[in-house]
Order: sequence, then structure tokens, then C-alpha cells
Amino acid sequence: MKTQPLQTRISTFDETGATIRGKSLVDDLIGEVTFSQMIYLHILGTMPTPAQVRVLDAVLVTLVDHGVMASVASRLVYMSSPDAIQGAIAAGILGMGSQFGGVMEEIGRNLESIIAAQDPQGEATAIVARYRAARQPVPGFGHPHFRPEDPRSLKLLQVAEQAGLSGRFVSALHTLADAVDKALGKHVTINATAAIAALLGEIGVPGRIMRGFAAISRTPGIVGHLHEEQTHPAAYSIGMTAQEMVPYVGEVPPRK
Amino acid sequence: MKTQPLQTRISTFDETGATIRGKSLVDDLIGEVTFSQMIYLHILGTMPTPAQVRVLDAVLVTLVDHGVMASVASRLVYMSSPDAIQGAIAAGILGMGSQFGGVMEEIGRNLESIIAAQDPQGEATAIVARYRAARQPVPGFGHPHFRPEDPRSLKLLQVAEQAGLSGRFVSALHTLADAVDKALGKHVTINATAAIAALLGEIGVPGRIMRGFAAISRTPGIVGHLHEEQTHPAAYSIGMTAQEMVPYVGEVPPRK
Amino acid sequence: MKTQPLQTRISTFDETGATIRGKSLVDDLIGEVTFSQMIYLHILGTMPTPAQVRVLDAVLVTLVDHGVMASVASRLVYMSSPDAIQGAIAAGILGMGSQFGGVMEEIGRNLESIIAAQDPQGEATAIVARYRAARQPVPGFGHPHFRPEDPRSLKLLQVAEQAGLSGRFVSALHTLADAVDKALGKHVTINATAAIAALLGEIGVPGRIMRGFAAISRTPGIVGHLHEEQTHPAAYSIGMTAQEMVPYVGEVPPRK
Amino acid sequence: MKTQPLQTRISTFDETGATIRGKSLVDDLIGEVTFSQMIYLHILGTMPTPAQVRVLDAVLVTLVDHGVMASVASRLVYMSSPDAIQGAIAAGILGMGSQFGGVMEEIGRNLESIIAAQDPQGEATAIVARYRAARQPVPGFGHPHFRPEDPRSLKLLQVAEQAGLSGRFVSALHTLADAVDKALGKHVTINATAAIAALLGEIGVPGRIMRGFAAISRTPGIVGHLHEEQTHPAAYSIGMTAQEMVPYVGEVPPRK
Repeated sequence: MKTQPLQTRISTFDETGATIRGKSLVDDLIGEVTFSQMIYLHILGTMPTPAQVRVLDAVLVTLVDHGVMASVASRLVYMSSPDAIQGAIAAGILGMGSQFGGVMEEIGRNLESIIAAQDPQGEATAIVARYRAARQPVPGFGHPHFRPEDPRSLKLLQVAEQAGLSGRFVSALHTLADAVDKALGKHVTINATAAIAALLGEIGVPGRIMRGFAAISRTPGIVGHLHEEQTHPAAYSIGMTAQEMVPYVGEVPPRK
Repeated sequence: MKTQPLQTRISTFDETGATIRGKSLVDDLIGEVTFSQMIYLHILGTMPTPAQVRVLDAVLVTLVDHGVMASVASRLVYMSSPDAIQGAIAAGILGMGSQFGGVMEEIGRNLESIIAAQDPQGEATAIVARYRAARQPVPGFGHPHFRPEDPRSLKLLQVAEQAGLSGRFVSALHTLADAVDKALGKHVTINATAAIAALLGEIGVPGRIMRGFAAISRTPGIVGHLHEEQTHPAAYSIGMTAQEMVPYVGEVPPRK
Repeated sequence: MKTQPLQTRISTFDETGATIRGKSLVDDLIGEVTFSQMIYLHILGTMPTPAQVRVLDAVLVTLVDHGVMASVASRLVYMSSPDAIQGAIAAGILGMGSQFGGVMEEIGRNLESIIAAQDPQGEATAIVARYRAARQPVPGFGHPHFRPEDPRSLKLLQVAEQAGLSGRFVSALHTLADAVDKALGKHVTINATAAIAALLGEIGVPGRIMRGFAAISRTPGIVGHLHEEQTHPAAYSIGMTAQEMVPYVGEVPPRK
Repeated sequence: MKTQPLQTRISTFDETGATIRGKSLVDDLIGEVTFSQMIYLHILGTMPTPAQVRVLDAVLVTLVDHGVMASVASRLVYMSSPDAIQGAIAAGILGMGSQFGGVMEEIGRNLESIIAAQDPQGEATAIVARYRAARQPVPGFGHPHFRPEDPRSLKLLQVAEQAGLSGRFVSALHTLADAVDKALGKHVTINATAAIAALLGEIGVPGRIMRGFAAISRTPGIVGHLHEEQTHPAAYSIGMTAQEMVPYVGEVPPRK
């Protein structure tokens, strides 16, 4: 950390507006590339191919919305501070933690280790055995409602296939899925989180920043719910219901 | 608030995956629409026209990056909690407050009042007079570096023109710009924030949610800087420099 | 901003541990002062008198808890990221916005302007008239349940009285309350937020930082609820109930 | 999770104000207990003894301030949104992550496992061996500046001793310290984080919520720096310096 010189390869301001990843913001980017292309360029440093953009769009579209439940924290913060909507958005982003984004990263690491292994099947079997020994589910497999298949996963894998980007990560996912099915003696759903991790791997997103893509996708999802809250408020009713749902069962002070 | 029934028009889960704004997530959205189309559909409720998408892309691309300075808070939070990158992203979103997103909203409201006025020139003149009476700059005008024009604004307005979406909001912006120039007796730069507010107005984004679009755009910008921080850390050096830049000038306790 | 030299009067590290506000952290503060004394010293720069500490304690104690409703956003963020509890706490802090902390600041400013006025009664009458003209409630007055008096306000004002700190701010509060009652032709409750703003004013807290004291107080309140959530989780049930409470009423795509 | 009935033992609203942990907010708490007593009662459910309060105060006082560096993220968020100070406070809380609060929790768990062991020395030796095998420092030991002793740790342990609360956790800390010294063949500093974890253990705070106490303590620290930023702004200079410190070394687009 000490000896590495401080430097950025992302951007610099100049009299033309700004240079971002070697492109002129005004001449090469505004009006010239889509938001999805810009996202890929900014984070990964190169302009994506059309196939990579197609897969990225499919992933980002999948993760935008996750229902009213995922908007409750944001709606409540908005209610208490409608003049500072950035706080409500931030509260929603804070919900993209280990139980979701972290799972995606873990799947990404598992797929990477299968790809790197000389014996992919053996590695997949070992990974599954490790979770089972710890009595934990294998991340990316199983879904409470979608059985035998998660329709989102099927569509995502189809998009990758059609884009010609069904390569090592998708293959590793199938290898892992086979190991899961064999260990459990039945077919287990490949859920959307697993398909997304595989597709992000295919387009060159390292596991360590996958959670960032989930946040990029979820931000407009939160904004959509906040826009609805502005005209059809639900936060107060939800909060009051929560208050009533969780009764106080502690001691009561003696009346004086 | 009490009598309005609770309801959402955004989404519902079902056995096909999910329905979002009347579209099947799996059949109609994943792999079928771009992220930009999805953003518009989710927040505003209708599928955008190609022209609206073009303008939306131009706006979102413009706001992604704002240099290392805008990433410092995120980089510092990341350094202290690299396992919870959502916190670092949230810290960046919290910086999209009144001094930036709020200014955009204020410009949006000013343009709306010029559009609504019977005498647009008169209304623009009155708006400018109000800020000058309060000895405040007119939001959206002036830039420390870009004179006489902000190249980003020129490009953004050109994109709108080419998309056939240079309508009431762009016209109101020019009316307001003329009033500013007349009041100050010289030409004042129309800055990028003003051009963005006008373009968002053109594609149907209400002023009250404009700050949300700034957050959508900035999220990948933050993720890009955090991805760089993962391999080329700068946060510690920045923090130490800050510590040294701000010396303690308070009292010193007597030695015992 | 440019010409003022950068400097801090708060703290510096040194070989004795640290110096904070002119005190040795190790010799003068740890084990020597209470947390409440430290809070006052750190923020306001001087060691508080015993009377000031008593009033500060009363204020901070009052604001710690605000029921399950105020903990819902934190509990939901915790559920999604139990390994990063700081995110759940931050989400709770984000709820201390304009509708609560901001109201306290507004009351503080109103009391300051009554204190500064040559004719306090006239100023109070003018303030009340201004809110009534805008068809807004006078901040600090009225409560949905506590009538005719808020028992918390009575106790807080009693604490200040007993501490000998019932001075200009408490007096201004009563002047304002009289103006409210006269304007409405009936007695209106002085709510706890008003009493707290007056007491913080009495101990030298400027209006512009009052919201910070609310956050200080609320942080342990959030931590208490998160500690309960760790062993008696309620977040998932609340989230699912919210999902069911807000039904989807949008279009449904045709079945294919 | 499913079968446990929803319930809270924290608080309920009622016509007397509120009941918190079996106490009347108005009769038993406001003006009757200190903020530190209230913190302990709210989170842990029982009124602390005077000795427990003394130790809690010492811990909370220690963690309030951590210099300008720890305030940079908050100051920058404040600069961009001074009207929403809760966002700046939240950004500071987000910095209390795994590298600090998480370390405290890890120390707490290590001390708990030494206490629970039949052979404490053996367990301590095993813990140290585990970190050394992973080429990691033993959490809680070593400090870049304080050698051979951290003066804060000495004072904290002294406070616990004087309060009569130097029991199993402090003893486990010394056992662990001996094992560290033996393994490294020299004396290694017991840093303040270790002493704090031991003291929190002594007063009954479980490891899983220790990070919450760090956040409680840091909140006024952040508020203090924000109060200073309101009158002596440093954020802009820090941000500009950061921008200049990290030069752009990427490609430059050809001039057109």
C-alpha cells in the first residue's frame, strides 16, 4: 500500500468536459453510448462488445425490482425525511448485503474455483460436500417457489447462449448443479442469483465487485418505489401495522 | 393518507417469475429490453419511446463520474469495511444531496413555472429577480471553468434536438437563460445541471424525483471507484493527508 | 472559505493517547467523566456544569426509544446483512430527518427569534400568524394522544426548573405557547419535541446542531432493537406483511 | 423463526408517555437516570449497577473521537447536503465496520472461548497458533505507536479493577496476552480495542452486539466534527487535495 504510487485510471476533468477511461465525455460518450455501455466502461475499463452489453442488460433488468418488501426500509426513511430522498435510496442500498449480494459473490468464487481446477467435477463435488458437512445449503441452489426450475434462470442462461457467451462460467454452473443433484439425490433449482453470478462471470466481472452490480440494478428499483410513495404513500400504514404486530410483553410499572 | 387504499402499480410475484408494470419479467423484460428502458418503465410506468431512451441515456451517461473527490467518502468507508461494500456505495449516494440533486430539482421547478405561465418571459424575469434580490446565483447558470459555454450542455441539448425532444422544457431553459443574461448584462454559462433538468423534463420526469435519476447514474460511478480502490487503494493516504492538513490548535493539557 | 486556515479545536493524537478539547484522554477523561459529560465537551468545547449534565441526560433519555415502528428500517437492513450491523444502525439514523430532527431545529430557531426580539409577545404572535397563514401547524404544539398536556414535556420542564436552568428558552416557549393558545382559542399541548428544543437551547446547543443530539440519543435505541432482533427476529414477518398489505393493482400480461 | 411469536420486551406507548423495559419513561427514567444507565437498560434489559455504569462510561468515553481522519466521510457528505445532517452522521456510522467494530467482536469471541475452555492456557495458545498459521496478527495486540503499552488500555483496565469488575474477561485477556508474548518471544502491546472488548464482556455485553456500542460512542464524535465543520469548513479543501493527490494516468483521447 505504501510503495504503490497513488493514481487513477478512471477520469480527469479538463477543458473539454472530462476524460473517462480514455474517452472524451462530450465527444465519445454523451449521446454516443448507452447507460449500460457506460457502466461497463467505467467499472471494467474497456468498451463492452454488443454480446457483453446484451448479457449485462439481462442481468441488470432482472435485479431492478424485488417487490414492496424490499422497498419498506426506503419508504419509511422517505416518510421521515422527504426532503432528502438520497437517504431513502441509501437505506435501500444498505439492504443489498451479505444475504443477497454476498451470496452472489460466494457463488462467483465457487464457480471460479471450479474453472481453475484440473478436475472440475471433483472440485464441484468437494464444494458441495463442504456445505453439506456444515449443514448449509449450497449457495445458488433451491428456491421456495420455483421448482423444478426458476424461469428467470432459464431465460438468463438462454440470453447468454444466444449472445454466444455461454462459456466457462455457465459450464461451471452446470457442473456444480450436477454435483448438487447427485449429492441430494434429486434435482434442485438453479436460482436466479446463481445464473446472474455465472453471467457476470462470463462478461468479465470479478466476484469481488459483483455486489456492486446488484446495487446498480437495485437503485432504480428503489427510486421507482419512492416515486410511488410520493403519490400513494404506504409507509405510515406499514409502520403502524408493524408496531401492532409486535406486542410488548415486558413488565409494566406499578401505577402510582 | 387514511382513506386512500394501499396499493402498488409496480410489481407482483407470481409463478411466472414476476409481473412488473404489466409486463412479464421473464417473457417481456429479461433479454428483451435494455437497462435504460427498464429504468424508465419501472419508475414512470410506461415503456419509453426510442427518442426518450436516447435522451435518458445521454443524461445518465453524463452523471456517472465526478472524479476522485466524489469518491472519497465511499473509498474511506470501503477501507473500514471491505466486506460490506453496500455501505460504501450508500455513503456515496448520501453525497447526492441538496447541493447537487437539490439544485437540479429547483431548476426543474423553475422551468415548470415558466412553462405554466401565460407570460413565459415575464415569469423568467421574475424568477431571476427573486434570486438576485436574495443575492443568490440563479440555479443552473454559471460554471467556474466552462465559459462561455459548458460543452456538456451543448452536447446534451444537441442530443435532445436530434431526438426530436427539444420542446417546452428546452424552450423554457432558453427563456430563462435570456433573462439571466439580460439581468447580468453578459452571457452566463448554461451548466450541465440545467441542461439535464431540462432534458429530464422533456422525457416526463417530474422535478420531485429528478434527484433519484442522479442517484441511479452515480451508483455505477461509485462502484467504478470502489473497484479501483480494491486494487489501487488511495483511501488511507487521503485520510492521513486530511489528518495532517487540519492541525489541532486547541489547548494542550499540562504535563503531569 | 478560502482564506480561513484549516484547523481543528477538537483533538490530536500524541504519545499520551490523545488530547481532546484540551484534556488528556487518558488522564482527564477515561474513568474521570461520564459519557454525557464527554458528549457535551466534545461537541460544545467546554466541560458542562452539573446542572447542564442533568438537563442533557433528561433530553437524551427521552429520545432513546420510539417503539418498534422506528426500528423497522433497521431491522430489515439487519436481516439482509447481519454481518454488517453498522448498516442497520445507519438506516435508523437516516430516519432522523426533517419530520423529526428538522422540526426540533425549527422550534429552536423560533425560540431564538423570540429571545432576540424587543417585543417577545409580538414576535410570538407574528410567528403563530405566519404558520396559520400557511395553514400549517405551529411546530412543537399539539399531539394526537397527549391532551391537554404531554407528560414528557411536563417532566422535562420540571427537570430544567429543578436544575436552575429554566431561563430564556423555557420562557420563550411559554410565550409562544400563550400565543398559540390565544390564536386557536383553546389550550394546545406543548409536545416533547418543543420541550427538548427549549432545554437544548438552555444548555447552549445551537439550533443548527440539535438534530445531531437526536441522533446521539437514538443510536442506542436502534442498537437495543437490533439486539432484540438477533434473538427474537421480527423483520421477516413485518416485511412479508407489508408485501401482502400493498396489493398489486396494475395490469397483468396476457398468458402466452 | 416461524413458530416463535412476535413480541418485544423493549417498549410500549401508553397514556403515561411510554413504558421502557418495565419502567415508566416519565416517572422512572427522564430526570431519574443518566444517559449511560438508559443505554444499558435499553439494550441489555436491566438497570446497571454503579460499577457497571462506571466501566460503561469509561468504554464509551474512549471511543468518542478518532481524529479528523475518521470524520472525513461525514464532513464531505455534510458539505454536499447540509440540510440533511442525518446523512452525514450515517456515513460516519458506516465506517464502524469490520476493520474496527468487527475486530472488537472477534476479540470478544476469543475471550469467550478462553473462558469456556477447561484449559484456558491451552485454548489461548491454540488461538494464537491459529492466527500465526494464517499469517495474521492476533486481534487486539500490537499498536503502531504505543509500545510497550497502550496508555488507554492501562487506564481502562485500572477503571475495571477499581470498579471491582476485573473478572473472567480481564483474566482471559491476560491469559491471551501471555500466549501472544510467548509465541512471539517478546512483549506485544494490549491495544485499546482489546481492553474495551474485555470490559464490555465484564459488564455483560455479548460479542455479537459490541459493534453497536462502538457506534453509540462514535455518534457524538461525528456530531462534534460536523458542528466544527459548520463554522470551520475543511471538507472542500480535503476533497480538492484528494483529487490532486490521485492523478489520472489513463489514456487521453486524441484531439479532434
